Formats: sequence, structure tokens, C-alpha cells
Amino acid sequence: MAFKIGLLGLGTVGTGTAQILLDPSGRNPLVEELEIYRVGVRNPEKTRPVQLPPGAVTSDLESIVTDPDVDIVVEVIGGLEPARSLILKAISHGKHVVTANKAVIARFGDEIYDAANEAGVYVLLEAAVGGGIPVIQPLKQALGVNRIRSVIGIVNGTTNYILTRMQTEGADFADVLAEAQKLGYAEADPTADVDGFDAADKIAILASLAFGGRIKLEDVYREGISQVSAADIAYADKLGFVIKLLAIANREMLQDDPTDRLRLRVHPTLVPRTHPLASISGVYNAILVEGDPIGQVMFFGPGAGAGPTASAVVSDILNIAAVLKSAGGHRSTGVSPVAAEENSPSPITNYPLPITNLHPLLTCTHQHYCKIAPIEELTTRFYARFLTKDRPGVIGKLGTSFGNHGVSIESIVQTGFQGEFAEIVVVTHDVREGDFHQALDEIRTLDSVDSIPSLLRVL
Amino acid sequence: MAFKIGLLGLGTVGTGTAQILLDPSGRNPLVEELEIYRVGVRNPEKTRPVQLPPGAVTSDLESIVTDPDVDIVVEVIGGLEPARSLILKAISHGKHVVTANKAVIARFGDEIYDAANEAGVYVLLEAAVGGGIPVIQPLKQALGVNRIRSVIGIVNGTTNYILTRMQTEGADFADVLAEAQKLGYAEADPTADVDGFDAADKIAILASLAFGGRIKLEDVYREGISQVSAADIAYADKLGFVIKLLAIANREMLQDDPTDRLRLRVHPTLVPRTHPLASISGVYNAILVEGDPIGQVMFFGPGAGAGPTASAVVSDILNIAAVLKSAGGHRSTGVSPVAAEENSPSPITNYPLPITNLHPLLTCTHQHYCKIAPIEELTTRFYARFLTKDRPGVIGKLGTSFGNHGVSIESIVQTGFQGEFAEIVVVTHDVREGDFHQALDEIRTLDSVDSIPSLLRVL
Repeated sequence: MAFKIGLLGLGTVGTGTAQILLDPSGRNPLVEELEIYRVGVRNPEKTRPVQLPPGAVTSDLESIVTDPDVDIVVEVIGGLEPARSLILKAISHGKHVVTANKAVIARFGDEIYDAANEAGVYVLLEAAVGGGIPVIQPLKQALGVNRIRSVIGIVNGTTNYILTRMQTEGADFADVLAEAQKLGYAEADPTADVDGFDAADKIAILASLAFGGRIKLEDVYREGISQVSAADIAYADKLGFVIKLLAIANREMLQDDPTDRLRLRVHPTLVPRTHPLASISGVYNAILVEGDPIGQVMFFGPGAGAGPTASAVVSDILNIAAVLKSAGGHRSTGVSPVAAEENSPSPITNYPLPITNLHPLLTCTHQHYCKIAPIEELTTRFYARFLTKDRPGVIGKLGTSFGNHGVSIESIVQTGFQGEFAEIVVVTHDVREGDFHQALDEIRTLDSVDSIPSLLRVL
Repeated sequence: MAFKIGLLGLGTVGTGTAQILLDPSGRNPLVEELEIYRVGVRNPEKTRPVQLPPGAVTSDLESIVTDPDVDIVVEVIGGLEPARSLILKAISHGKHVVTANKAVIARFGDEIYDAANEAGVYVLLEAAVGGGIPVIQPLKQALGVNRIRSVIGIVNGTTNYILTRMQTEGADFADVLAEAQKLGYAEADPTADVDGFDAADKIAILASLAFGGRIKLEDVYREGISQVSAADIAYADKLGFVIKLLAIANREMLQDDPTDRLRLRVHPTLVPRTHPLASISGVYNAILVEGDPIGQVMFFGPGAGAGPTASAVVSDILNIAAVLKSAGGHRSTGVSPVAAEENSPSPITNYPLPITNLHPLLTCTHQHYCKIAPIEELTTRFYARFLTKDRPGVIGKLGTSFGNHGVSIESIVQTGFQGEFAEIVVVTHDVREGDFHQALDEIRTLDSVDSIPSLLRVL
């Protein structure tokens, strides 16, 4: 028996996916039972690097997700629409779905999983985070017995490539970005990567799986890397740190906060050089998971690219095929034929859901939203760089202002001059983010302080 | 519905397993459906750090594996017997089995999986390699769609701890081993770790999964670390390498060898400092998998310890419970009642096996044995240290002998003196192992050469 795949999209990842499916020898034998049955593309006339079955290619993507013979729909077109609508329609027609689309899942995951649970189908998304690195499956399965304390990831290859080159070459952000765009490592519009939106999508997905609750994307605090300067990278280096764009989700109890709230954030971070994440260079990704009783485990690999991402996509297809084989069936009958005919996505219902026959580690059944602590309540160390007038007593004034707000300083060093101004770098001990910003507000009123060009958190 | 667990052994890992099962809150909800039903120990009177259900503890381990109410048998007693017999008897009584026992699986995996396939039960072993690191599940599932080229692991924490301390302290093997024994990081009889037997068991298991064939343990070439000296570590460091005990399985085609043979070996290896495995320190483990199209992925984490290993054990139990739930059943009926009553393990049969209802990614269905290339046919770089008489022309003679056997030298350096002898370190380019040894045989006959104290391969 073959499982019929409806592939939506034949870009880089879609082509990589087709290449694996069309050339199964030497892979898991089950790959031979996966058949590329239909392929949806914008332009069916275009010449493709893969030899697809005659008649499989169409520009009518709706006809694929409603095709009664398709078992599994693979969505690799990306973007929000029509991806979201096609996924929902596939679900309402009883198809299992595999997607690489972090943007859709991070924004519409609740709607999609409600529909999938109601229809009794799987929606798998290994490729959405970390490219080929197996991290979604391990979080659901191997690590699920742990109480997860934190998930910390370098999950955006573009920004890691830029920061790595800034580090090794002492180059400035704008120059490296321009070079990365020329090499194809950064998009023409780099906002999604450089401003941390992509990483925020990914940590929302990882946190949802790790902590077993839904995440609202707007709850993820987010800062990009465009403010990171060559000077900061050099100072961080002297202090024993490298600067990485980290995506962090953790469940740390504060003494004055007995509630079980998550902290979710994406920002450039000073990482101690001895930390496992410090050595992750270039376009590689890594995800570090800490839990009880496992301790720390890390997953490392290529975070993007046709081959790695296609590997993750096909592994999801394989997992669905395997579960269907062991359960002895192919497809759910989906929701009522009426709903399906009306082409309406399933309505959102209130639980419990009738999902008794789905594999419980491959579904997404949690319904509540995680409580998120505001960034002001974060406790962290800070690195800050000040430009001040070159006068005696400035360091004393900075120290006094920090002290007024309970901010304890680890080091305060005048590192040199920038034009007429003296440059001072401060590293704090653990402080409450809100207190630190109050201290900065006071410092900004000081006559001797010109500006605070850099403000970074320390892991 | 609860899944009834029969736990064999209540040592470190067994206790850690019980602790997770008895305290399910904050973990995957399915953990609440796992019930510690019976526990087999040597001495039931002993006080334990876990509060077990009254009457659960027994010293009659056979009564657990034959108990009709037990769904899943968890074997964490270790060693070869009675572990092997208990596993086989559990299988013949239709129990699914979870084991952390690499020694049993590496030696009797064929017998055990034949029996399991015939009985229609799962035998999972995530904890057998890499402690808590999820590597078995990813190899079976997420990475299974790849054509695996190599699996390279630091899979023995004791030897990695010893080599790391030798590296950081410049200490000698014997001193660090004694210290490690005092700290409990090495056994009183360290042979299994230090001589590479444990790592050989583990690479045999990993290779079997990665390359989809059975492995005979005696086909794994094996060298331990007791010959590694502080001097070698220092010279390697100068050359840009760290020395690690690597377990390596790869499927590399040689030009003159068109057959599809594996290379399986455990030996101390010079690893370039920039390689991902070079920075794995202390008791940590890491497994690097390279495949097509995924490229390189690495899994890193604690390779041993009660908590991490128990995490892996319970994740296997969870996986079985999840598959059984989705398939709508609890237990296989096992082999014929007659066989079960006679307490005989299932006879080994010849295939195909009737395992249509098992989840194909959680079973082990391959029947053929992998073809293994002998170590003489390996192509690798070498590091060798020579003690020679302090005479002009010695380096020329070494070079000539290597040249006579087609061994191409990358560097040859007189590093200093050891007593009356000059010490010379040679690093080769890629050479055939057999040719290199023929060159060494010739060199040993040279009057000016005293000895070859070190011979290590380079990654």
C-alpha cells in the first residue's frame, strides 16, 4: 500500500522533498511506500530539476487538498496565505498535513490544531524550526517525560552568519549584511531575520511544545541585531563573551513570583565563551534544552537549506505513514461532509476533543494559553555601553544611580574614547529588568552622560 | 486506562525511573497513565529512596516477566545474565520491553529482535547509548529518510573524562584513572570503559540502526586509551588537535572497493580543534551523524547518570504506551501459549515476519548482517611517535621507508629528547592502514630506531 502525497510548492524545499521521495534506495524502506501523487505549483510549464509523474503537476492547489485520493498534504509554499487556508481545507477533507511553515503555525497554530484535532488528523512541523535538526520530535517524545526548565536556541541562520562574520572580521553590521545579501544568506528585505521575527516565531513553537501550552506570538519580547556594533563585539570578546541572537523560553520561579509563568524573548545576548551555544558559528543552528531530570541536551545542525529542510519534511511524512500503518488505516474521514463541501474550516470548539485514536505524542492537544511574565520582571545580567563627557567623577555618578535602584555592578571600565566622549562599559550582576531601566532613566538625566549606544543582556 | 510496568532492577537507573513514574506532574500527561505495578530486586528488605506501592517489590524476577497483567517490562539490571533470559521470557509472554542494556543488545540483539518480531512486541533501547541524549529515536525516525554516511560518537563518559583531565592538566593516564576511580567516574575494574568495550557495544547498536543491518560485535575494531600519553596529548595540542576516544561507523566507498561495506572502529583519535566533537568535555557524550541530504547533525548531552538515563527509559515507555493507545490495544498475545508455558524463548525463524501491526519505525526488522571492511583497508591519516638514536640521517631513513610503501608524509618533526633518544613525531596524509603498517614493520628493522611508543589515527 502506498501513501499518496499532495505536495504544495516546488521551490527549494519542495524540490528537495521530491528528490528524496523519487529516489528512495538506501533510505528507510518505508520511503518506498510514499508516492508523489500530485504537485501544486504557480507555473506548471516551468522546467524543473526533478522528473515528476506525468500529469501530477497542477496550478490548482485547491484541487490537491480536496482530492479524495490524497493521504498527506505537504505545505512548503511558505507565507501566510494561501498557506493557512489550504492547510485548513486539507484538514477539513481529512488529510494529514506536514508543513515547514513556522509563520503560519506561530500565528494560526491554535486554529489549525483545533481543526486537526476535530478532524482526527496529524499536523507535523519538524521542518519549521532548526531546518534538518531533529528537535520537534525529540521535544514531543524523548524529552516529554522531563519537566522542561528552559529552551535556548540559535534558530536563525542569517543573523548567526552575520554575527559570526562581525566577530571574526571585526566588521560592522551594515557591511556584513550587504555581503550576506549578495551571497544569498540574507533576503533583499532582511527584516524578518535581522529584527528577530523569524526567531520569535520559532521560539513560540518550541515553547508551546516544551511547556505544553499555547503561546500568543505577541507575548514574545523581541529585539533584533541591527544595534549590535563592532565595538560591542570587541568589548564582549575581551570580557570572555560572544554575542549571539538567542531565542529563550524559560520557566524560572522568582522569589516574589510563585506563579508558573514563562519568560519568552529574542534578543542579542552575551554568551560566555565556554557555553555550548558560544561555538555555534555561521548558518548553523542549535537548540539547548534543560529539564529535570535530564539536565542539558543540545541539538546542532544546519538550520536551513533545501536538503536538511527536506529531510525534516520527509521524516514527518514517514512518521505519519508509520503510525497509520501500525493503526491499520490510511486516512481520517475528516469532519462532516457538509462542512467539507462548504469549504469552511472547522469551527473552533470547546473540549474535550474526540481524538482517542491519534498517537498522543504526535498531536497537539493542550488548549490553555501559557501565562507569560512581562519583560520588566525578567532577572538577568546586563552589558551597557555609555558615552560620557571626559570628566572626573563620571564613574562615581553612574555607580550612584545604579545603586539608587538596587542595581549591583560586576564591572565598570572606561574602555577608551569615541571622539570627544569617554566610553564606559558596565556589566551588572543579576538585576530586575525594570529596576535596571529605572536606573538608566536617571542616568540619562545626568549632565555628564551623552548617550547609551548599547544595551545587551548577558546569559 | 493505565499501562502496567514491571521494573527489573532498582539501582541508580531503576530508582531514577521509579522517581519519574511516581511523580508525573509537570511532565507529558501520558506519564500519569504509566503505573509501576511490580518491581524486581535482589533484596526486597532493603530501604529504598522511593516509596513503592505496597506489595509491588519482589525478588522473584521471573514472576514479573510472566505476570499476565504486566504490559511493559523495563530491564535495568544490566549485565548479560539473567538480563538476556528475562528479556526473552518477557517477549515470549507478549510483553513489550524497554532496556538500558547495551551489552545484551550488542551481543544478543539478533536473538532478541527475532523473538520480539515473532511475538509482535517492541524492544526499545534509547537509554543504551548516550544516556539521556535522544539519539536512537532520531536515528530511527527523523534521520531515517537520509542515506547515512557516518556516525561518529564520543559515547563513553569515563574515557572522555580521563582524556579531558589529561588534556587540561597535562597529567598521565594512570594518575587520572586513579583519581576518576576515587570520584566514582570510573569502575574499580575499568576495562570495559578504558579498553573501549563499552564504546564498541554502543557503536555496534548505532551502526545497526543507521545502516539498517545487523552487526557482529567482533567486527568492531577496538583500541583503548591506556596507551595515550601526556606527551601525545601535548604534541597533538601543538598540531591543533585534541585526542578523543571516538566510536566511528562509516560507509565510505574506496576507489578500489565498489562494494558497500562498513568501517567500524573504536580508537583514540586526533580530532581537529575546530571539529564539533573537539569541544565535548568531561563526562558529556555527543553523537555526530552525517547523511544525505541532511549534512551534519550533532546530539550532545549527559552520557550517563541516574536522571538522564531514566529520562531515556521513561521516554521509551511513553512511546510504547502512545503507540498502543493509537493502535487501540495494550499487549500482544505473544507467541503460542505452549511456548510461553514451557518458558522457552522463541525459536529463531526465517522471515518474512508477521509484524504488520507494529509501528515500522519502532521495530528492528532488518535480517541481513552488514558487510564490514577489515581495518587494514581503512584509509586514514596517522600520527606516530618514534624514539630513535640521535644520529644524522634518521629522518631521511624514516621518510624513505614510508615512501617505499606509498605512505605520504604531511609533517615530520624532531620534537625533543627522551633520555638518550631523539623523539620524532610524524603525521601522514591519507594512507591505507595496511600500507602504513608495512612501512612501520620496515622501520622497526632500522638500526637507528629504538621504538614506536605511539600510533594514533587522525580524524
